[in-house]
Amino acid sequence: MISIFALEGIPEIAPGDDLAAIIAGAAAGALIDGDILVVTSKIVSKAEGRIVRAPDREQAITEQTVRLVASKPHAHGTGVTRIVENPQGLVLAAAGVDASNTPEGTVLLLPEDPDASARAIAAGLRERTGKRVGVIISDTLGRPWRLGQIDLAIGAAGVHVFDDLRGRTDSAGRTLEVTITATADELAAATDLVKGKTSGRPVAVVRGLPEVVTELDAPGARSIVRSSADDLFSLGTREAFEAGVAEGLRRAGVTP
Amino acid sequence: MISIFALEGIPEIAPGDDLAAIIAGAAAGALIDGDILVVTSKIVSKAEGRIVRAPDREQAITEQTVRLVASKPHAHGTGVTRIVENPQGLVLAAAGVDASNTPEGTVLLLPEDPDASARAIAAGLRERTGKRVGVIISDTLGRPWRLGQIDLAIGAAGVHVFDDLRGRTDSAGRTLEVTITATADELAAATDLVKGKTSGRPVAVVRGLPEVVTELDAPGARSIVRSSADDLFSLGTREAFEAGVAEGLRRAGVTP
Repeated sequence: MISIFALEGIPEIAPGDDLAAIIAGAAAGALIDGDILVVTSKIVSKAEGRIVRAPDREQAITEQTVRLVASKPHAHGTGVTRIVENPQGLVLAAAGVDASNTPEGTVLLLPEDPDASARAIAAGLRERTGKRVGVIISDTLGRPWRLGQIDLAIGAAGVHVFDDLRGRTDSAGRTLEVTITATADELAAATDLVKGKTSGRPVAVVRGLPEVVTELDAPGARSIVRSSADDLFSLGTREAFEAGVAEGLRRAGVTP
Repeated sequence: MISIFALEGIPEIAPGDDLAAIIAGAAAGALIDGDILVVTSKIVSKAEGRIVRAPDREQAITEQTVRLVASKPHAHGTGVTRIVENPQGLVLAAAGVDASNTPEGTVLLLPEDPDASARAIAAGLRERTGKRVGVIISDTLGRPWRLGQIDLAIGAAGVHVFDDLRGRTDSAGRTLEVTITATADELAAATDLVKGKTSGRPVAVVRGLPEVVTELDAPGARSIVRSSADDLFSLGTREAFEAGVAEGLRRAGVTP
């Protein structure tokens, strides 16, 4: 049995705010050993001052782009949506640059190193509360093949991000085919059910999975990122097809 | 605040078993209005007799393939892993054909119509318990860009599979950029945290989200499937590139 609840009373976050102190205050002594706190990336970005002046959001996206993965024209109006790989290895729309929750003329970037952010928050919470808690930083991401977005883990500290079931057997003694569960992603998704997007509740607690909590230096959410070299879908279908056409023309001795 | 707990005492399921009766029995009168039950697809497949004789698993995968999306050689040994679109529109490895939990010489296919399966279970549970519950059928799926698998919804009845936030404002009155949450997927992911893969607990209950429960004829999980025509990643990168090469050679007048 697990329970999931959002912390009430987290104020609007400003650059320089101490998130561990604010979260510990909102939890008001209610945290226990084994709790996992899932923190929406937006407030981490704000605390870390990742608000930048950007009259042109497209320019901010370009600066946060390591590699263009796919693009498509906007459904309405002009411009294109770009799916890119960002500096943290995440593949996501608009490089995670958020222009909807910031003052006019500014945009919010994702935390520069979400695993480090998670470690700082987890260390601060452990010190302040004396409780062995884990921290996940979540972001809302789209995905191929399925409509809608879900929250996933982009930062983690003090939690086992994977549950590696390879070689284990099920209740009837048969070897499992399914191999590795992305536990941190399931935790992030679960907490979105109570945090919501419109409620001003950016932090939620998952209680009842103490076996998932571990040392602060365990691998973070970066280890969930699949390297593009190992990815069967490292490039959009149209982009890969067009690269192939150019290659076919090149092989035929035709200059595209 | 939500709570999630697995039902204990679900026996090994056999073809023809009445899942609604078995789940209601395991719940032993503890269900309440607004509960959402997430049922692992494996037991639905077993109850529906989706065990087929298949000395050759590859042949079973071929029969469950509507469209080959991508393939890659196995990491060890011979053969390839095929990512395919199955008859329900799902894009998944090996067409969801499971050879690890069935008697030698047989394989387990996914439910033929998981939304219909969910409706039957939900209707049976509502009738037996008198409670307004929702049902999701989950499966464990891999994904591009990220390692590890998570549970997602492949069938749903009596739940709002999406939470459409378009045009809504956040707590500070600003219009949300994020648009549609795939609630059913987040519910499936959340329950995997208590069901596990090795525990013999194939059914879990999410309590505390009565607003997600609705009529049985609401759109099911099929509506989460993005049509390949709208998908920027409808084909593996290598497959799209090779199709492009062939097209480039064709345009150059060269027969590949």
